[in-house]
Formats: sequence, structure tokens, C-alpha cells
Amino acid sequence: MESPERINELIAGAIAGLAYPAAVPGLFDPVRYTMESGGKRIRPQLLLTSYCAFGGENPEHALKQALGIEMFHNFTLLHDDVMDRADMRRGRPTVHRRWSESTAILSGDAMLTLATQLIADCTPDILPAVLGLFNNTAMEIYQGQQLDMEFESRKDVTVGEYMEMIRLKTSVLLACACRMGAMLAGASETACQSMYDYGIALGLAFQLRDDWLDTFGDPIEFGKEIGGDIVNNKKTWLLITASSEARQDLDDILFEDLEAKERIAQVIRVYRRLDLSERCLALIDSYAEKAISCLDNPEIDSRWKEYFTELARRSAKRTH
Amino acid sequence: MESPERINELIAGAIAGLAYPAAVPGLFDPVRYTMESGGKRIRPQLLLTSYCAFGGENPEHALKQALGIEMFHNFTLLHDDVMDRADMRRGRPTVHRRWSESTAILSGDAMLTLATQLIADCTPDILPAVLGLFNNTAMEIYQGQQLDMEFESRKDVTVGEYMEMIRLKTSVLLACACRMGAMLAGASETACQSMYDYGIALGLAFQLRDDWLDTFGDPIEFGKEIGGDIVNNKKTWLLITASSEARQDLDDILFEDLEAKERIAQVIRVYRRLDLSERCLALIDSYAEKAISCLDNPEIDSRWKEYFTELARRSAKRTH
Repeated sequence: MESPERINELIAGAIAGLAYPAAVPGLFDPVRYTMESGGKRIRPQLLLTSYCAFGGENPEHALKQALGIEMFHNFTLLHDDVMDRADMRRGRPTVHRRWSESTAILSGDAMLTLATQLIADCTPDILPAVLGLFNNTAMEIYQGQQLDMEFESRKDVTVGEYMEMIRLKTSVLLACACRMGAMLAGASETACQSMYDYGIALGLAFQLRDDWLDTFGDPIEFGKEIGGDIVNNKKTWLLITASSEARQDLDDILFEDLEAKERIAQVIRVYRRLDLSERCLALIDSYAEKAISCLDNPEIDSRWKEYFTELARRSAKRTH
Repeated sequence: MESPERINELIAGAIAGLAYPAAVPGLFDPVRYTMESGGKRIRPQLLLTSYCAFGGENPEHALKQALGIEMFHNFTLLHDDVMDRADMRRGRPTVHRRWSESTAILSGDAMLTLATQLIADCTPDILPAVLGLFNNTAMEIYQGQQLDMEFESRKDVTVGEYMEMIRLKTSVLLACACRMGAMLAGASETACQSMYDYGIALGLAFQLRDDWLDTFGDPIEFGKEIGGDIVNNKKTWLLITASSEARQDLDDILFEDLEAKERIAQVIRVYRRLDLSERCLALIDSYAEKAISCLDNPEIDSRWKEYFTELARRSAKRTH
């Protein structure tokens, strides 16, 4: 059996070995910079482990698609950073900071086409299904990003709308990776769909945990200061729920001209009073369990089933 | 036989009838705005006429790909306008002006994926070839745009480099449209390649004529003031040739702090002295003739051969 460690090595090696056209380095240097800047690489891992879990014989046969998903993910980060005017990413200057905004836009476009080329590099019999899944997923992610931007200027976002936004912005790409791995291994449509559902639930747990960590995490383990979402008034599950249950208390805090530290403390006090930390953790756990229930499938290899179970539990408890 | 007029109607109707997901109008309103803002629609016309010229039975069978090429072209304009900070396009505010820069970036990304979806909507047997052509063409166009941006800050651009840049930025998409139409009609590889070569030569004639019109055109027929390229010091065939043959004269003009009108007049005087208008027209004609020579192919329908011949001649003489 292939091990998760061996799969990680495969991915790292393939990313380091990606060849870019030499003719126009100004276009491809930022692509290499982005791809080699690290990150968790969870999406290509999901694709290749899912491939193995359904009896795929050689992970190298699904490696192009794994790289394509990672290339696509990095393209969305690159363009999101331009839209958010973010200065840093993974401890390094963002592309539009290091080069220019035009370079960031154009290199991002090139990454989207490179991702499509990698995804499409499969046997012709499954090309229509694989490419269709990828393109549909991409369209959903753009919609998620658009909703996320629109939420910034809205005060009436509901929890339901928020969950739909993070489903689109975060979950569908994890789900796409899981499903594509199973497809490439020749799994049944039922199995492919259950892995897709696993990825959706995993993504929701993952994103909610991200929101929770930003407010209740340990800044040393989390690797950044907590309270950023509160300072930026970012619509998260915590803020939206608090707004619907204690709007006046939150408005009173927002109305006062408080320093960041004091505002964070006061908002957290409201969250604590509403028991939001525990309620959020319970919600995260319920999504992790939902993900695990999707693994109840006779086609999946039992050792890999354990791996995916553990992954969902770990995602729900992660501290960074 | 299908007529060019009927093909234009087909394209106009299909663009007006394009359906976009209703869920997130903020993402798709700019796409519709861009697609319905007009333009010459030369790329989808080339694709469909090439399809007909090689015996394609029903242009509706190649319509999705024609729309995909037009969608892609409009995506490149949308992102180029952000990079160039252009305020107007086709007589209307650009998307980043009318909405926001973030919207322009994200809607453009969506257009690239929508284009890929349209292109990929063909029979599975030719999907790998059709998609491969499209993706390779897209990669070349990004390289062309990158070179165009790099040329702005370079003083040593050669005519050879310039011709390669416009081949990448302009010609390859026309060539892709011509080749894809022939492919969809089931033409031989030789015929497909000759239509590709036709598109390359046509594109070079087209772009050189654009440069010529900007300096020597009739402002009323051209629809805009002449001399924009000179004022912006844009590296065109005219400027690059003049730089290599009369660098000192040009430097003297640039050194002086002249009003736009006077600078245009002085640069044109240098161009005239070097006979650049006539030499540029001769070069345009030679590319038009090169395009026409690519039509010397027994597979092409003789009435359509006349159409493509006429198109190349007209492109070389166009006044707007």
C-alpha cells in the first residue's frame, strides 16, 4: 500500500519538477514562486489518497490532476490577494507586491490555463467527466468568492447564506479533489458521490475551525494573533450567530470607538455569554462526523478508510 | 450554402441567448455587459466560416466553440483593461470602472472558465485535440501580453521581437479560430494547418494595419484621433523601424517638451522621410498575400475560398 508520506513526497517532487516555458520568464517566475511557497497541499493529497482508497494502482497516473487542483487553488489565492490587497502570504510578499498587480493578474490567468492543461492530461475516456467536474467546481468557487465580497458590505447575512458561501468558496474544491481521485481509480458513481460528500463536510468543518481558531485559538500554536476577524468585522459563523441573538450588544460595541484589543475582548465576552465557542465546536464535530459517515462504503479500502476518518477528526481538532 | 450574413445572425442570436447562472448576478452581470457590448466578432466568424469552407454541415454544431473563442477574447480584453487602467471600451465604461477592479478580475476569471466549458462542449472524439489547441493558444496569448507590457519599459525592442509579440498577442487566436472550424468540420491535418497559417498571416496584416491607421488613418473613418501610439510612445512597427534607422532624430523630438499635437507632427515627419507609411503598407499587403496563398488547398470549397481571399484583401485595406 502507498503511504500518505510517500504521497506527500510524490507531490513535493512533482511541484519542484514542474517545467515552465523558458521564453517569457516574466510570466512564469511568479507562477513558480507561488507554487513553491508551500502551504498544506491538502487538495492534491486528498486527490491521490482518494485514488489509492478506491484501488488506483499507481498514484503517478493521477499526479497531473493532483497538481492541476493545487495549481488552481494557488491561482485563486493569487487573484484573491489582489482583490483583498493582501501584502503577505505564507510568510512572503504576495505576487502583486513583489512584482506588480498586472503581473499578478496575468500570471494568475496563466495558472488557470495551466491547471486546466494538467487536469485534462488524462485518458480520453474519462476526460469529459473529469474536465466537467473541474470546470463546474471552478464556477462555484468564483460564486463563493463573489458572495464573500458582497457579504462585506451587508449587515443581514444569515447563517444559511454563510454556510452556502463557505461551501462554494472552500468545500467544493476539497470535494472535487476527493471525487476526482475516486473517478481516476475507476470507482462507481455512488462511491464517487460519497467521496464528494465527504469533501463537502470536511471543508465545512475545516472552515468553521478556521473561524473558531481566529477567535478562540492559541496565538502561539495558530501562528498569528487572534481576533483579526473581529477587528475586520468579518462575517463568520460566530459574528452572524451573535448578531442574530444579541444584535444590540454587538451594535453597542461597534458604536464605541474602541482600541482593537478592547474591542476583541468585548466581542469575545458576548460570544462567551452566548456559549458560541462550545456551540461552534459542536457544529464542527457534527460536520466531521457527517464526513466520516460518507466513508461507509464497501468499495473503499479499509486501511484508507481509517486514514480518512482520522483526517476528519484531526481537521475538527486542529490547532493551526 | 450558408452565407456570411446568416453566420453573423447566428452568432448575434447565440450571444444574446447565452444563459448565466441566476444565483449570483454580481458575478455574471459584468460578463453579460462585456459579451453584449459588440465588437467585430471576427473570431467566431472565422471559426464558423472555416467550418463551412471545409464542408461542415450545420454551423450550429460549431457554435459553442465559436462562442467560446469570443468569450475568451472578451476575457482577455477585460483583464487587459484592468492592467492598462483603460476607462473606456467600445464606447462604454470598462468593467473595472463601472463596477470595481475586484469584480473585473473575478468576472474575467469566470469568463475564462465559461470559455473553456463552451470549447469543451463537442463530441468526445475530438475533445482532446480541440481543447489542446485552445489551451495552447491561451498560453501563447498570455506570453504575448506579458511581452507587450515588458516592451513598454524597453528601448531596444527589435522588429523581429515586435512581430513575435503581435503573433502571440493577436494572430494565434485568429489562427486558432480558423483551425478549430476546420477541425470541427473534419478537415485533414494539412488543411487544418493551412487554415492556421492563414489566420497567423491575417492577424499580422490586421495588427500592422491597426498600427498604420493609428498614425496615418483618417480620424473620421477610424473613429478616433490619430497619433495615440506616438503620444504613448508605444512600440509599434513604425516606431521601432524609425528608431533603428533614425534614432537621433526621434531622441531629439522626445527630448523636447512638446505638446501632443506638435510631437505627433514631428514624429510623422520622420516617418514620412523614411517612407514608413508606404513600407508598412507594402508589408501589410505581403502578409495579406501570404494569407491568401494558404488557401491554395483542394479541400476548401471554392466559394468560401473567395470569401477568405476577399477577407484578407479587405483587412489589408480597412479604414476602421
